[in-house]
Amino acid sequence: MTLHLNLFIYPGGHHEAAWRYAGSEPERVMHLSYYAELAQRAEAAKFDAIFFADGPSLMENVQYAARVKPEPLTLLSAIGAVTERIGLIGTASTTYSQPYNLARQWASVDHLSGGRAGWNIVTTGAPNAAQNFGLAEHPVHAERYARADEYLDVVTKLFDSWEDEALVADPASGLYADPDRVHRVDHTGRFFSVAGPLNLPRSPQGRPVYVQAGSSDDGRGFAARWAEAIFTAHQTLGSAQEFYADIKDRAARLGRDPGGVKVLPGISPILGSSQREADELEERLNELTQPAYGLGQLHRLTGVDLSSYDLDAPFPREVLDTGGERSEASRFQLVVDIIQREKPTLRQVLHRLAGARGHRVVAGTPELVADQIQLWHESGAADGFNVMPPYLPGGFDDFVDHVVPILRQRGLFRTEYAGTTLREHYGLDRPASQYTHPLEETA
Amino acid sequence: MTLHLNLFIYPGGHHEAAWRYAGSEPERVMHLSYYAELAQRAEAAKFDAIFFADGPSLMENVQYAARVKPEPLTLLSAIGAVTERIGLIGTASTTYSQPYNLARQWASVDHLSGGRAGWNIVTTGAPNAAQNFGLAEHPVHAERYARADEYLDVVTKLFDSWEDEALVADPASGLYADPDRVHRVDHTGRFFSVAGPLNLPRSPQGRPVYVQAGSSDDGRGFAARWAEAIFTAHQTLGSAQEFYADIKDRAARLGRDPGGVKVLPGISPILGSSQREADELEERLNELTQPAYGLGQLHRLTGVDLSSYDLDAPFPREVLDTGGERSEASRFQLVVDIIQREKPTLRQVLHRLAGARGHRVVAGTPELVADQIQLWHESGAADGFNVMPPYLPGGFDDFVDHVVPILRQRGLFRTEYAGTTLREHYGLDRPASQYTHPLEETA
Repeated sequence: MTLHLNLFIYPGGHHEAAWRYAGSEPERVMHLSYYAELAQRAEAAKFDAIFFADGPSLMENVQYAARVKPEPLTLLSAIGAVTERIGLIGTASTTYSQPYNLARQWASVDHLSGGRAGWNIVTTGAPNAAQNFGLAEHPVHAERYARADEYLDVVTKLFDSWEDEALVADPASGLYADPDRVHRVDHTGRFFSVAGPLNLPRSPQGRPVYVQAGSSDDGRGFAARWAEAIFTAHQTLGSAQEFYADIKDRAARLGRDPGGVKVLPGISPILGSSQREADELEERLNELTQPAYGLGQLHRLTGVDLSSYDLDAPFPREVLDTGGERSEASRFQLVVDIIQREKPTLRQVLHRLAGARGHRVVAGTPELVADQIQLWHESGAADGFNVMPPYLPGGFDDFVDHVVPILRQRGLFRTEYAGTTLREHYGLDRPASQYTHPLEETA
Repeated sequence: MTLHLNLFIYPGGHHEAAWRYAGSEPERVMHLSYYAELAQRAEAAKFDAIFFADGPSLMENVQYAARVKPEPLTLLSAIGAVTERIGLIGTASTTYSQPYNLARQWASVDHLSGGRAGWNIVTTGAPNAAQNFGLAEHPVHAERYARADEYLDVVTKLFDSWEDEALVADPASGLYADPDRVHRVDHTGRFFSVAGPLNLPRSPQGRPVYVQAGSSDDGRGFAARWAEAIFTAHQTLGSAQEFYADIKDRAARLGRDPGGVKVLPGISPILGSSQREADELEERLNELTQPAYGLGQLHRLTGVDLSSYDLDAPFPREVLDTGGERSEASRFQLVVDIIQREKPTLRQVLHRLAGARGHRVVAGTPELVADQIQLWHESGAADGFNVMPPYLPGGFDDFVDHVVPILRQRGLFRTEYAGTTLREHYGLDRPASQYTHPLEETA
């Protein structure tokens, strides 16, 4: 089974201090060339896709961290124009957008890129996002997922509203589009009322690849229903295996082919020619972190302000039980697990989160990183990985130059693209339109 | 005073039957290469900008006309990646979108293109659009403009929310963004409540160039307040002069520099090496029209169904007085004026509208078209033109090869770009952020 690899691009890199590390080029954070060059490198390495995260509000503590970047749909569309094969995945929220607008833009990106679009479907829990959209409070977790579920129903109808054969464009007869193959969707539900049809034809992939990234119970249920690829964060093989088995099982119970749901944990590879060199790189990056930033992140994740605690004393586990507002349920559990398992100091927890915001950091030689990838891939934990270089572009170059060749030697990773669309890279079927009906006999 | 020229790109061309005309390549309507090549030709000809119209619903009667195309923000972003200088203008509606989402995307396109974005700000009046956004009826004209006005207030605050110097990105000090230069906008109004700030830094142009296209009284008031360039449709020099004078006067009365509001009427040049050749081309295009389509358009514009009337009898002027629902007030008046002035048959009206949906069609030799452009430009009717080739790409090639050289010989049009941004092409100032404040003394 082919291993899938995405490049997850964060400005500067995934380590929170990456932008302070030599060669990360923070001044290019809003330049297309910065992202286009990374995408071109990933394409040259035959990666399945690049991926950009997103949220409709300014991250807190922007004084400390590179947390601004272009908006994903416009960025992916631009990158698509200067690449040919690599998949283009971006996050867009279902909480603060209208299905008709977003469906049009994803269909457009899929057309313009020749079938390479992937939509990471999220609900937005950031408290400050609600205030950018006229709400005093953001909707609760279950309510956001209920909206997301109906949202997916609506956009899928819209993506399907033009049958594949609907656009005729025959100059001789004067028939541009076959009205019998362009369908109103007439959706009426709790959250949305949308007549349709979409105002552009069915896209090369039928729909963008549906990607999902929440690991809470609501998130898993949503993923099992809709996702074709899942981004997920796991610190241990056991946790990843449990998640993998659960997702495939949930999908199967809904009548889906489990092979049609690709599970892609994050991995942040900190590479060195020796273990010591890799550890030193990690240490150098950690030394560049600013505790005020990490404490802010931890506050957001746990709902607890720990800024008055001693950074070098054991993590005060008990204070987490007081609760508080948590924007990402699954990521909170991951922090609790690290604390239970490793008994770290507060500073050590900050450094763990600094690595890749809760995703797994593997520091070591290329062989060690390749071994870990192979182990997870062959142990029912991962269909592939979201590769999160600690700093960019150098940290990605190291992965491509030193880890990818090992994966290829072991027959795990492709040497050439077999197809042209993201669905083909992932081995996913192209869905038929739900409105497809047989051609009538013509006289 | 420099003449400004935009290429207004409609799939196939602006004549409604263009897609049936040889060489218009209707099968490429969703391909990036089709649009990118047109943009590159326009850039080679040193045009100020390309422009794409848009609306969030499917045009009626899609069986007869090429009325599908990519969504403008994603399309312009892709085109920006394969061009270097040309401005990128697209329509986006204020009626069915949220200011925070749209502000982010326009700022993103402006960043990614190096300062070439222009936003054609519209309100949406298409009855079927409301039903794509949960509304049974679309908001009335005045209400849409009230929303648009507040929308512009909000997005301008968002575009301004990062001062130019806010992004510091200094690895040594660890200061990424200066929190004193990133401002909440805390807008609360009748339609919107938006806290901000935007989650990306101020863009190269400060804001996209604000473009506007409505010519009703509400539209003119809105344009005088906000627009930096105006697209407008006029059949006669007198009408264009009246509009030009009125807009400049309204802007001046609001304390704006009238030179900061560029008036750009549409012109659809049907070119031939002789008048007869041009007339024959127009006739060939008109012969390819399908009356059912034109009658549908006329129904939408006038609110009256004329499909039972004789196509070759004089236009039944009196039936227009019965009223009905009219989605575009200014375009309706234009149709009435044509009928009053020219006493045409119904079919002749359909042909007039087929040319460029009410915009001015000039059929003739390159000299005649250049003369008309010069006349309007030098008679207080136009700062430039939105060039609307009847068919594409050939109709644009003819304009570039035969009309542009004449305009250059007469010293009216540039031979090279003087700047790199759309504001520079148009000779518009880069606005300062409304939140700009002097740097404090640092110890």
